[in-house]
Amino acid sequence: MNEFDIITRYFLPLTADRPEALGLRDDAAVMEIPAGRELVVTSDTVQEGVHFIPGAAPGNIAHKALRRALSDLAAMGADPLCYQMMLALPQAPGDDFLRPFTQTLLADQKEFGLYCSGGDTTRSAGGIAVALTVLGTVPPGRAVLRSGAQTGDHIYITGPIGDAWIGLQALRNLPAQDKNYFISKHYKPIPRIHLSTIIREYATACIDISDGLLADMQHLCQASRQGAALYFSEPPVSWQAKSLMDAGIVKLEDLLTGGDDYELIICVPPQRTEEFEKQLKEMGLNPFYIGKIHEEQGGIKLDGQYLTWKTNLGWEHF
Amino acid sequence: MNEFDIITRYFLPLTADRPEALGLRDDAAVMEIPAGRELVVTSDTVQEGVHFIPGAAPGNIAHKALRRALSDLAAMGADPLCYQMMLALPQAPGDDFLRPFTQTLLADQKEFGLYCSGGDTTRSAGGIAVALTVLGTVPPGRAVLRSGAQTGDHIYITGPIGDAWIGLQALRNLPAQDKNYFISKHYKPIPRIHLSTIIREYATACIDISDGLLADMQHLCQASRQGAALYFSEPPVSWQAKSLMDAGIVKLEDLLTGGDDYELIICVPPQRTEEFEKQLKEMGLNPFYIGKIHEEQGGIKLDGQYLTWKTNLGWEHF
Repeated sequence: MNEFDIITRYFLPLTADRPEALGLRDDAAVMEIPAGRELVVTSDTVQEGVHFIPGAAPGNIAHKALRRALSDLAAMGADPLCYQMMLALPQAPGDDFLRPFTQTLLADQKEFGLYCSGGDTTRSAGGIAVALTVLGTVPPGRAVLRSGAQTGDHIYITGPIGDAWIGLQALRNLPAQDKNYFISKHYKPIPRIHLSTIIREYATACIDISDGLLADMQHLCQASRQGAALYFSEPPVSWQAKSLMDAGIVKLEDLLTGGDDYELIICVPPQRTEEFEKQLKEMGLNPFYIGKIHEEQGGIKLDGQYLTWKTNLGWEHF
Repeated sequence: MNEFDIITRYFLPLTADRPEALGLRDDAAVMEIPAGRELVVTSDTVQEGVHFIPGAAPGNIAHKALRRALSDLAAMGADPLCYQMMLALPQAPGDDFLRPFTQTLLADQKEFGLYCSGGDTTRSAGGIAVALTVLGTVPPGRAVLRSGAQTGDHIYITGPIGDAWIGLQALRNLPAQDKNYFISKHYKPIPRIHLSTIIREYATACIDISDGLLADMQHLCQASRQGAALYFSEPPVSWQAKSLMDAGIVKLEDLLTGGDDYELIICVPPQRTEEFEKQLKEMGLNPFYIGKIHEEQGGIKLDGQYLTWKTNLGWEHF
């Protein structure tokens, strides 16, 4: 198969017959942005050997690539529109790679409501890389930024954190019970895109947890020129992770600083928390209340103590 | 320097203080699309060892990445808006890479009228890779597609082809006079973005020459369900390339099938060619008239003969 056969057979179905993609046969996609909406644009890359281990299943690479990028849209309170995919592959891909990779993208597209508008496929001198630019929309002025948190806001996260980090350790053959659960959380995070409407309605500020809970909490605080006081009556982790903690296999610190969960940190003014919690519960979610925004700029307190391990709150590339 | 220092010091200036980029500190960019315009979206990747040789100067990598992508916008008749940059680097970059790389992007941004709206920087398991998604706009319904060519249209190219291919050979130390000229054409193609208005006004179909003149001519013909009869009274090459042809160092066939020139193929109805040529000349361009669209679907004739080297008209990745 040459490049053009690959496009026709495997990538064309990802356009879901949308005319905007021009059959992947033109130099660009052309689209109308719905009247009265602003465009939200985000980009995210996953690299073999960096974001996933060499030999990861093609479907897992697809999940990880698309869901990570969608998570950024969710954190803006945006509704997905389409994505551009830049795929780099070390050699000519065969059906064994392309079929599960594109079938997984197709399933996720349907679940999260977007289509592939275009992209390119190139040969890579290294491993597999998938770079995505995802477009979404919001009503004018309604994008939820990191910078809007106010003193007194309650801080929530949309689900347990640390599972993806344990999944990565499990892949590295460190001991872990419930291995498949954690590995699935590593490869197949849930982008909280179905919460966009609720986030636009209630959140003063929002960020997705890609670098780690504490690191991303700090990013939100810095952007908002606020601090955060975190109190965990119960650690915001899954029962599976809790049982590993109880067995002394993992430490809370690892879970609070491990990245890649893609749950959202959402700040909500105190007078609106009751309604917000109710809405999330109606969607079957149990958000964790983890603390409050306070006015001491940039500082994060954990159980009343300022964090002292400030230089290693989460993932950095270099 | 960590990832966040790099963003602040080197990438933030690329936003040109546009509020849409949110200081590169949020999960996404948020922008209004000007009322009454459609969005045009294209993506392009350059990879070390594939699109440029290992050790290429950072400024040359920047030129190549941005100009290639802009060329796709030009071929749609679109006006540039902004770009997302996904940069993958094998190790933590220093000032020696980042300064010339971003300074070159900044200069090209100014020349072509766009800003950086966001992106990401990741570690790469292979070499340097720059994946760009470029956004532009057109008035509604005015994007110029590959598929609009009509029988009888005159075919033009906006400048000489083959220079970039000779530049690549020169880099590989094959003999070439005017080495610097050709190498510059290889790294620093001219995206014909200033022609967008003229292209929208006169072209029935347009494509940029990335894979090679004949390959891209064929892409346009296939999309338009037409054929093309090419006649070169003079070969559409630079005088520098012509002198290498005359010396027997390069063959016309190499120049017609070598890619990466990023000149445009423009189809213009016969009754409008005079005005079109005049407009281009007023902009200091000397387009080459290279033939006519004919109705024999998909076939390309060169000097009256159908091409027989059909399977190797240009660049393919795999």
